[in-house]
Amino acid sequence: MIVLGVAAAATVTRGQPSNWYPSRWGAADQRGAANRITPAKVLEAKNLITQGAVYQLGRTYETAMPMFGTRHYSLRIPQTFGPMGSNQTTYHDEIVSAEIGQVGTQFDGLGHIGIGDVFYNGNDRNEFSKAEGLTKLGVENVGAIATRGVLVDVAAYKGVAQLAGGYEITLADLEGTLERQSMEVRAGDVVLVHTGWGSHWLTDNAKFVANAPGIGLAAAQYLVEREVVMVGSDTWATEVVPNPNPELQFPVHQLLLPRNGIYIFENLATEDLARDRAYEFAFFFAPLKLKGATGSPGNPIAIR
Amino acid sequence: MIVLGVAAAATVTRGQPSNWYPSRWGAADQRGAANRITPAKVLEAKNLITQGAVYQLGRTYETAMPMFGTRHYSLRIPQTFGPMGSNQTTYHDEIVSAEIGQVGTQFDGLGHIGIGDVFYNGNDRNEFSKAEGLTKLGVENVGAIATRGVLVDVAAYKGVAQLAGGYEITLADLEGTLERQSMEVRAGDVVLVHTGWGSHWLTDNAKFVANAPGIGLAAAQYLVEREVVMVGSDTWATEVVPNPNPELQFPVHQLLLPRNGIYIFENLATEDLARDRAYEFAFFFAPLKLKGATGSPGNPIAIR
Amino acid sequence: MIVLGVAAAATVTRGQPSNWYPSRWGAADQRGAANRITPAKVLEAKNLITQGAVYQLGRTYETAMPMFGTRHYSLRIPQTFGPMGSNQTTYHDEIVSAEIGQVGTQFDGLGHIGIGDVFYNGNDRNEFSKAEGLTKLGVENVGAIATRGVLVDVAAYKGVAQLAGGYEITLADLEGTLERQSMEVRAGDVVLVHTGWGSHWLTDNAKFVANAPGIGLAAAQYLVEREVVMVGSDTWATEVVPNPNPELQFPVHQLLLPRNGIYIFENLATEDLARDRAYEFAFFFAPLKLKGATGSPGNPIAIR
Amino acid sequence: MIVLGVAAAATVTRGQPSNWYPSRWGAADQRGAANRITPAKVLEAKNLITQGAVYQLGRTYETAMPMFGTRHYSLRIPQTFGPMGSNQTTYHDEIVSAEIGQVGTQFDGLGHIGIGDVFYNGNDRNEFSKAEGLTKLGVENVGAIATRGVLVDVAAYKGVAQLAGGYEITLADLEGTLERQSMEVRAGDVVLVHTGWGSHWLTDNAKFVANAPGIGLAAAQYLVEREVVMVGSDTWATEVVPNPNPELQFPVHQLLLPRNGIYIFENLATEDLARDRAYEFAFFFAPLKLKGATGSPGNPIAIR
Repeated sequence: MIVLGVAAAATVTRGQPSNWYPSRWGAADQRGAANRITPAKVLEAKNLITQGAVYQLGRTYETAMPMFGTRHYSLRIPQTFGPMGSNQTTYHDEIVSAEIGQVGTQFDGLGHIGIGDVFYNGNDRNEFSKAEGLTKLGVENVGAIATRGVLVDVAAYKGVAQLAGGYEITLADLEGTLERQSMEVRAGDVVLVHTGWGSHWLTDNAKFVANAPGIGLAAAQYLVEREVVMVGSDTWATEVVPNPNPELQFPVHQLLLPRNGIYIFENLATEDLARDRAYEFAFFFAPLKLKGATGSPGNPIAIR
Repeated sequence: MIVLGVAAAATVTRGQPSNWYPSRWGAADQRGAANRITPAKVLEAKNLITQGAVYQLGRTYETAMPMFGTRHYSLRIPQTFGPMGSNQTTYHDEIVSAEIGQVGTQFDGLGHIGIGDVFYNGNDRNEFSKAEGLTKLGVENVGAIATRGVLVDVAAYKGVAQLAGGYEITLADLEGTLERQSMEVRAGDVVLVHTGWGSHWLTDNAKFVANAPGIGLAAAQYLVEREVVMVGSDTWATEVVPNPNPELQFPVHQLLLPRNGIYIFENLATEDLARDRAYEFAFFFAPLKLKGATGSPGNPIAIR
Repeated sequence: MIVLGVAAAATVTRGQPSNWYPSRWGAADQRGAANRITPAKVLEAKNLITQGAVYQLGRTYETAMPMFGTRHYSLRIPQTFGPMGSNQTTYHDEIVSAEIGQVGTQFDGLGHIGIGDVFYNGNDRNEFSKAEGLTKLGVENVGAIATRGVLVDVAAYKGVAQLAGGYEITLADLEGTLERQSMEVRAGDVVLVHTGWGSHWLTDNAKFVANAPGIGLAAAQYLVEREVVMVGSDTWATEVVPNPNPELQFPVHQLLLPRNGIYIFENLATEDLARDRAYEFAFFFAPLKLKGATGSPGNPIAIR
Repeated sequence: MIVLGVAAAATVTRGQPSNWYPSRWGAADQRGAANRITPAKVLEAKNLITQGAVYQLGRTYETAMPMFGTRHYSLRIPQTFGPMGSNQTTYHDEIVSAEIGQVGTQFDGLGHIGIGDVFYNGNDRNEFSKAEGLTKLGVENVGAIATRGVLVDVAAYKGVAQLAGGYEITLADLEGTLERQSMEVRAGDVVLVHTGWGSHWLTDNAKFVANAPGIGLAAAQYLVEREVVMVGSDTWATEVVPNPNPELQFPVHQLLLPRNGIYIFENLATEDLARDRAYEFAFFFAPLKLKGATGSPGNPIAIR
């Protein structure tokens, strides 16, 4: 059923309604599942804070990090400015050039992924994708995500330190893990999938990017039906790569982002949460309001 | 007294102890006042969340934003990638080049400001400021800041929409505003000063950067003594520019960052908090872990 | 006639032959009028060198230079590297971010300008314009341009220091100037038009980019018929802006680049040639071989 | 003697005259050996043009090219602009971020290399090396280099396709090659050394940058005494790397640039000249006038 849905994507006709748009949040909506963040959801998150223990979920951005394709990340410290004044103020800044929303720990916005020319809410890239920034679906529209977070430690469920590259996390895996953790996924949640793959970050970059374990279409559909806001993981794709169906390229991205307005957060540092069995927590993140950008770098916070 | 202290900065000798280092957090410390974030402080913040109302405090990053000196911000959307696979996946990313930690809404780390060659904790720039990134005091060391936030609406206290450019917020102003708000500043807090100056953002960029209202040395010293973690505002400098003492250049930056390890957050969008008289809130922010960077862009969250 | 030709462009059908392609140099050609540089033409240029007087025709690239739209140019010198070895080698490099082929003195390649989706030789942008570089018509294909150069000092002909912004250099102006200079344009030449507009460079950037004097369609057609290789000038567009026909946007660019494969060189420093009445010279330039780029920065040389 | 000179460099005292400055071209000079380009030299070059055969000496700039350390080169084509007007003008530009004067085919200016803090003509980096560009010795001061060029095909002299990595081209090699070619080096010449190392460009990048054959101090001193303007080659360093004396790092760079104001051009495409035994030619190059830059990319031209 899912597979049929995705296959049908190939025949999308520009500007025509379809089975997946207009969005349930209205034809003008640009925020997708971020609309599920309500005051009640914020209060639900608040009540998960009992210890005051804070986790940073962002990895360090550095030149040596693994990157997809020909993307780059360059940081340089220019010559020191100053000294100025009798108080001898000196200062530094930094020059960064990068595909900033799509390297390292990265939040995928609704302008990132399309099905042919069609993106979230039926927006045609020929109309909104402009050189100076996306004129619709830019990441500045998302807003703050303060909600309940759930870690799904599939590696622990499978009894391994790392899932294998190309391993598809099935619906059974997802349900089994949740059951093991005595946890449920609720509407408005952020779900983070721990695969252990992050242990290859910087230690074996070639291996890290060659493929990845991750959720397949069935597990993703489960999360769609639970009405989550975002799915994240400690891999560069969150979804399994390559997909078991060799004809499909990143179909989970399409299912989540354009079809359902659900965000993806990649290359998260989930290992501390897993180590501490911190399966439920308050999650806080707001994308950088990079006008017209497709994504955002980030260092989201989990607190319990 | 403060003024004397700053003047003395000019005679700092490399590698020598002084009245301001080693840091109270130890000679090896790179986190400064972020050490004040304790589980108790996180729980104090949590208890300020009662409505589930969320505020984004970051402004939009865009080419048109006012910038200091010759700094720049460029974002471009490259040609669309794909389609790939039978499911026709297409995608966009973005190329950004910028002094990324020092344009727009910006968090100043401990490697940003020095007194001559000496930075926080007595670190000599000749030793740690390297082309490929600061080898000490990089913003990746800061960690998450989840704590009580206080808005100090000095504009409202003075009965104006905006303080004037170059207006020094005095100690009396700060104390008067806090009294008006029936509020106190506590150790570990983040203090945001609302001046109204942000109303010139994009509407009159030349005016915005020509000068700015902000705290002077006496008000800053008050915050130092209250042991805050960070001071922010809706101006590009947080401190008054120019300083009333024409010989001094950014002395408040020196008092806060190198001397006391207290962070600064500039160009915050404080107007919604001010409008709602949201003077006390939970504050959440974690800098991007840009290795060796002097600062971080951000979109911090206030919740009450 | 010219105007009709340009209007007809609007009805170009993808992939169909037209009155302007395939190119006279073959359907696979990517070099356009650079094919006119022959050994005989090089020897003709050589024979114009009689004094050994060399002129640099490139302007200085700097942050303060006038730029079109939201293009940018940023250069920073990172912290000094080294010292290394007992010989204490230190070194600097520079970080540059820019629309490097389209800021400052700039050579327009065949991938720069299209008529709708169609570029030189009938190439469809949907097929060759890729995020990682143009897969056809990239500036690396051009090769060296060593040929006879002719300066056409229209400002002197009109008896002014600068032509006015928006002034169209007519066919009569072009022919009159050549007659005044006792000069003819030959096949394979590079023709540089001096307007005096360059005197506003850096001195009045707002004026410089607001509009420009330059050749109109009739003068451009004359140069097409003379079979030149390239047309340059001391303005940012070489052609008159705005075009006297308000419906047309940069029609001379279309006439020269996609229709005839003739290159354009903008923001040249022609003032020294004009001062010295150096109307005929050997011209040397080879674009940077920036793979898949639309243009190149440059500092071409004129020698007589 | 040379070696002693280099060792002595370590004891240079800031601001003091030495055995190598002020420059022979005056204490204010910023052009170094480019002062050797005279009208007579230009005419000498002209007279070497007899066939009209043109060679491009620049390699293609692309992401895949070998680079030193953490330098980068990124080029992206943004979304197409337009169409504009009834004539449907569309256009592309390109975003490039790079250490633009120090990647790929690169011309080293006088601000690139120092001996400790001291650069060409006794300039102290603490005074001229500023974040926004070098305030002295920037590459914009060099000017056009139009002169006699000599190819020294040492690989052919040694009877190999490529010299080995780390092979020092000795004075005997240099003299032997010139004798074999019946050629002499004259004041004001550009000398290009063909090693064959360029055959590893893109085909084995790891090998290409691991080390390199090149001239040693004795061969370099010979060229200094011949009063050349520039030395280039088909390697990334022109000089032998590592130097046979393991205590020295890039001593030939120091001998040529700061001590003698002689330029270096790296990663040149010399193979076509070598194939055609084009040992003597007119050489044309003018660095991009990148204000305050340490070097320039380039595509120099050889004509005979």
